[in-house]
Amino acid sequence: MDLTGNIIGERFVVISFGESHGRCVGAVVDGCPAGLELSEADIQRELDLRKPGTSSLISPRVEEDKVEILSGVFEGRTTGSPICMLVWNKDVDSEPYRTFVNRPRPGHADYVARIKYGGFADWRGGGRFSGRVTAGLVMAGAVAKKLLSKTLNVEIMAYALEIGGIRARGFTLDDIRNKRYSNEVRCPDEAAAKEMIGKINEVKSEGDSLGGIVECQVFGLPVGLGEPIFSSLDSDLSRALFAIPAVKGVEFGAGFTAAKLLGSQNNDPYTITDGKVVTTTNNAGGILGGISTGMPLVLRVAFKPPSSIAKKQTTVDLSSMKEAEIVVRGRHDTTVIPRAVPVVEAVVAIILADHAIRAALIPPVLRD
Amino acid sequence: MDLTGNIIGERFVVISFGESHGRCVGAVVDGCPAGLELSEADIQRELDLRKPGTSSLISPRVEEDKVEILSGVFEGRTTGSPICMLVWNKDVDSEPYRTFVNRPRPGHADYVARIKYGGFADWRGGGRFSGRVTAGLVMAGAVAKKLLSKTLNVEIMAYALEIGGIRARGFTLDDIRNKRYSNEVRCPDEAAAKEMIGKINEVKSEGDSLGGIVECQVFGLPVGLGEPIFSSLDSDLSRALFAIPAVKGVEFGAGFTAAKLLGSQNNDPYTITDGKVVTTTNNAGGILGGISTGMPLVLRVAFKPPSSIAKKQTTVDLSSMKEAEIVVRGRHDTTVIPRAVPVVEAVVAIILADHAIRAALIPPVLRD
Amino acid sequence: MDLTGNIIGERFVVISFGESHGRCVGAVVDGCPAGLELSEADIQRELDLRKPGTSSLISPRVEEDKVEILSGVFEGRTTGSPICMLVWNKDVDSEPYRTFVNRPRPGHADYVARIKYGGFADWRGGGRFSGRVTAGLVMAGAVAKKLLSKTLNVEIMAYALEIGGIRARGFTLDDIRNKRYSNEVRCPDEAAAKEMIGKINEVKSEGDSLGGIVECQVFGLPVGLGEPIFSSLDSDLSRALFAIPAVKGVEFGAGFTAAKLLGSQNNDPYTITDGKVVTTTNNAGGILGGISTGMPLVLRVAFKPPSSIAKKQTTVDLSSMKEAEIVVRGRHDTTVIPRAVPVVEAVVAIILADHAIRAALIPPVLRD
Amino acid sequence: MDLTGNIIGERFVVISFGESHGRCVGAVVDGCPAGLELSEADIQRELDLRKPGTSSLISPRVEEDKVEILSGVFEGRTTGSPICMLVWNKDVDSEPYRTFVNRPRPGHADYVARIKYGGFADWRGGGRFSGRVTAGLVMAGAVAKKLLSKTLNVEIMAYALEIGGIRARGFTLDDIRNKRYSNEVRCPDEAAAKEMIGKINEVKSEGDSLGGIVECQVFGLPVGLGEPIFSSLDSDLSRALFAIPAVKGVEFGAGFTAAKLLGSQNNDPYTITDGKVVTTTNNAGGILGGISTGMPLVLRVAFKPPSSIAKKQTTVDLSSMKEAEIVVRGRHDTTVIPRAVPVVEAVVAIILADHAIRAALIPPVLRD
Repeated sequence: MDLTGNIIGERFVVISFGESHGRCVGAVVDGCPAGLELSEADIQRELDLRKPGTSSLISPRVEEDKVEILSGVFEGRTTGSPICMLVWNKDVDSEPYRTFVNRPRPGHADYVARIKYGGFADWRGGGRFSGRVTAGLVMAGAVAKKLLSKTLNVEIMAYALEIGGIRARGFTLDDIRNKRYSNEVRCPDEAAAKEMIGKINEVKSEGDSLGGIVECQVFGLPVGLGEPIFSSLDSDLSRALFAIPAVKGVEFGAGFTAAKLLGSQNNDPYTITDGKVVTTTNNAGGILGGISTGMPLVLRVAFKPPSSIAKKQTTVDLSSMKEAEIVVRGRHDTTVIPRAVPVVEAVVAIILADHAIRAALIPPVLRD
Repeated sequence: MDLTGNIIGERFVVISFGESHGRCVGAVVDGCPAGLELSEADIQRELDLRKPGTSSLISPRVEEDKVEILSGVFEGRTTGSPICMLVWNKDVDSEPYRTFVNRPRPGHADYVARIKYGGFADWRGGGRFSGRVTAGLVMAGAVAKKLLSKTLNVEIMAYALEIGGIRARGFTLDDIRNKRYSNEVRCPDEAAAKEMIGKINEVKSEGDSLGGIVECQVFGLPVGLGEPIFSSLDSDLSRALFAIPAVKGVEFGAGFTAAKLLGSQNNDPYTITDGKVVTTTNNAGGILGGISTGMPLVLRVAFKPPSSIAKKQTTVDLSSMKEAEIVVRGRHDTTVIPRAVPVVEAVVAIILADHAIRAALIPPVLRD
Repeated sequence: MDLTGNIIGERFVVISFGESHGRCVGAVVDGCPAGLELSEADIQRELDLRKPGTSSLISPRVEEDKVEILSGVFEGRTTGSPICMLVWNKDVDSEPYRTFVNRPRPGHADYVARIKYGGFADWRGGGRFSGRVTAGLVMAGAVAKKLLSKTLNVEIMAYALEIGGIRARGFTLDDIRNKRYSNEVRCPDEAAAKEMIGKINEVKSEGDSLGGIVECQVFGLPVGLGEPIFSSLDSDLSRALFAIPAVKGVEFGAGFTAAKLLGSQNNDPYTITDGKVVTTTNNAGGILGGISTGMPLVLRVAFKPPSSIAKKQTTVDLSSMKEAEIVVRGRHDTTVIPRAVPVVEAVVAIILADHAIRAALIPPVLRD
Repeated sequence: MDLTGNIIGERFVVISFGESHGRCVGAVVDGCPAGLELSEADIQRELDLRKPGTSSLISPRVEEDKVEILSGVFEGRTTGSPICMLVWNKDVDSEPYRTFVNRPRPGHADYVARIKYGGFADWRGGGRFSGRVTAGLVMAGAVAKKLLSKTLNVEIMAYALEIGGIRARGFTLDDIRNKRYSNEVRCPDEAAAKEMIGKINEVKSEGDSLGGIVECQVFGLPVGLGEPIFSSLDSDLSRALFAIPAVKGVEFGAGFTAAKLLGSQNNDPYTITDGKVVTTTNNAGGILGGISTGMPLVLRVAFKPPSSIAKKQTTVDLSSMKEAEIVVRGRHDTTVIPRAVPVVEAVVAIILADHAIRAALIPPVLRD
């Protein structure tokens, strides 16, 4: 673990700051190698995939989310110094949240935050517990992605695998590359995407919300990332993924299904292809003994349905200590899956960049 | 993350050392509060639950696994200084492993370790990648468990939930407390336990192996453990759980099932019971926003089937770079679930102790 | 140590960012307890003591250095979330520094930075190696000072002990409290202060610069701060003090003089005063075995003369690899001592706050 | 800083454990690259330079101090896994220390330890605060030294510069190499050595003790070690040096003398020698901006006189809270300087190894 809770990584280190309705949301990246070409456009591209107000399916909050790089970049390249980045908060409507101070919303962190921080936590828009904080992860992830791409040609692709029980099927690698961002739910199976959208609209009209699963695959990863036993690649990835709000499960390769298999079914036999050692199946999901195998990394992240629903719910009034009812108004996502897709990619990129530097697969200075 | 890969925790810190067929396996605990009564018997009790050779279902390797405390305890109490503990390795038979240096076993870390450590890793008995390394986790976990029990009255109970597709059902909290250690598979549902044992014996006779799921529940945890966003309680627990060999998935509360629920189904309504704020359901598994809610912590860990199987398997010969066959002889578990039960408890205890100290719920000195 | 180089602390963690001529200089504080009253005025007061352009003795660069708190404070109190603070750079004149890219200034980091960061470091105004970066330390230190003052009534006072060989003498604790900020050199001995100012003006007119010593005393520190052996109080203080540019030596209590004493002279005898265990002398400088003793903390920090001098100097031209001459123009301090005084206080405060939290002497939430 | 207090380093990490009169003293090294030839003889050579009982000038405690490597080395080479090493304590006489529990020895950590650890600290032989704990540093340092020597040809040499006010003078690099271990006080100036020995014997007969200064020079260090600002090379070295018991001051290059110099005197002019950029003087002591310059690293460490003296001293009786007298019997060093020499070398080696790996100057696997 490290230090206090808002810092992750050992060599590619990310510090998160900012609140949903405060002045800004941002991140500092410390440890990025010097010499990487980096512009605000590189960050903006990723941020735009996460920002609200871009589709009828997601939150209508209107945020430009225009990134500013405040330090660590000089003449278009990273300098080796900390990179501070942020977006200013603009479309803020805090008033609806005042109610929840005394009547904590089921499924949200209102109650635990109140106890843990003695009533001093910023409650506006969920404060530090808002999904908006993931904008900082996306900024840092954009740097990590560019670094991994430039140095190791690593490709990271997440997508909606399942929403509301509807699962994408039969898609190819090309579908992932070409179709995941061509529909509003970021699903590589277009038929499933249509069904998902229908389901979302239906549930939205009922004032309810939907969970789902994001899958992420990574191609081009060399053998050797991961520092067993406690900083195993799966250990560090899962740690970072559970930092995303609403995540309730993480699995690699065959995952929970492996629990039902025989060893003879689950073991991935080795073979030689193009002079390289590969496996003929990939139940391991690209990780053995906590170390990357050179096969594609495959992981899945289960998201619960958003806790903010328009339906009446039971809670307690903390001043009277009696049961009370609550209706959560505001601007919310019916499902987080589409906007979670770039966040999962970002978080995976951060951890992989950190491990690639730790394993000396990326040097401290990038010379052309 | 921290430092190199063999250290975990921030205030209750565990350093793991030792190899399967080296001189010993051990752990150092740094940061344990002073004044905790601690004896070798406290550690031994937990180690005995993990040790091999105690049942026909598990590895017949005969290890006394007698713990020695080398530092940090004086006159029967912890001093606040690092506690170094170890067990000596005795029943070592390294010869069968020599073959795997050139012919990596499918599902094991042989190949990745060879690449990552340049051929210098200790291959005897799997070396540092052996399940035997978890003995160090159990030692450290025993200290954490005692600390949590003495100071906060926390009770941590893991058990076999599923083996080879057979799932425990209908068990009560009393069943968990009283029956999980009364059968060889550590399952609170005795009917399921019988089925599991039958299945294990059947698969064992075929030279194959079985996966499964360990569930863990924790009672008595106060509100407020967890340091969002990156050191959230689920983040740190999952990180530590993936450090256990063979783990492929981790979920909390409703977990992957939450992905299929509506918000109105998944949200846990608040109510007041005995003057305390509680929830009427526990789909959150005791964690909201990365912080403990005061409800029972519930998590599940998916284990793949052991990679060592007696069946012939396909691998590659790394000297000739050609496909080759391999049969993995040796003394192995048909399923790791029964022995994983105390390991999961230990790992959960380590993280909870760390977080309880971080949240100042346990002081640096225990005064009677 | 931790992580990469721009992060310090374990529980009260400071992240430094920004460059001398970039957009801003700032800091993030993570781990500050919730509930501390904090305003921009609290930070500004300390920053104003460090800012340039306020006296004829120091750099004429005109910077308003107006702090902005971007996160972590809500309704006038800290929330427990990261506090991001910065000042914007305004009075920037980078052109004179272009020469030094190829002709590194003696005594500066130009050459080592070029090699270490492969020519990608921001050279404008010394970039990340500028004394301006200490503005971030002062911001973070202001938070730490307020925290220590409110919770433990700790008082931290640094002052010029020596400049250009002229040493303050015979001053009392009252002099320190009342006079150190009443003269331009921040010296509690007003006669020495006058001499120092004369010396500075003389040396300035010759285009040269002066070193000196800052002494710092801390009152009100309880027994028990410091985590031996590697995070001893002196270990962590010295580490942080050497992070200040131009520091070449750090000593505690009798310091280097202790090397010349007999044990019978250096040992501080214990006695009882007002029912408390104290020592009759304080050669230890308030630290024994790496732990605070409850006596005043006393430390001294040696600063070299500023490397930027108007005199002609010998360097090398890195393109021709031949010797070359250089004159360092620009706006510089003749001595850093006066402006180093608030920086030393800030750095000491940061480490003490971190250790007070680690030793559980400050709780995670401040309740009135 | 890191974690709790008994861990240092980020990539070459050292964990210290053990007490003076407990079962053993040891260290774990995590992060040592794989493939380094390493034997117990490599460690023993360094340990023998530190062990007691080898001269009439130092403690007569008889300890064989025979190192055992318990993990991390296989077939004569490091594996990349944690290296646990220890020496068993044998010649233990704890009884004289019982008195000090209630009557803390002036200059020792007895009193602060009692308060900080609530009376639970191991008081036998000073427990965790004993100089004996430095045996663990020497073990870890021996690994670091070998690593630095094999990969970068770095040479680390410490020696007595001053004892009891008598200072070595006029010695050459050859004298350091050849004479520092040829006399009992480890001084490169043999005339000074004789005087020092005379002084030690005189002071010893009076039941008193002597302080001194150890100087350390490092040759062969490349440009670029050090991670400003908080993990600057001087920051991390000073932090580690203050972890050695009895250290009261640390300085680099001109150190405290630099405070008295003009910039034109203190700046080291650059020139070209053998096609390399060097400086004609080395007031910087091999560090600028927190980064190694390629010139020799030069540092000095001030040690106070040992606190254990045979003379009667004043202390307090903690049960009656009245003044009391005390005489510290036992087996003690009259000065720690000779035995501190290998400890300083070890500590410097640990930090340099860590930084060389962090700067990617040493790879994770050493291939021949």
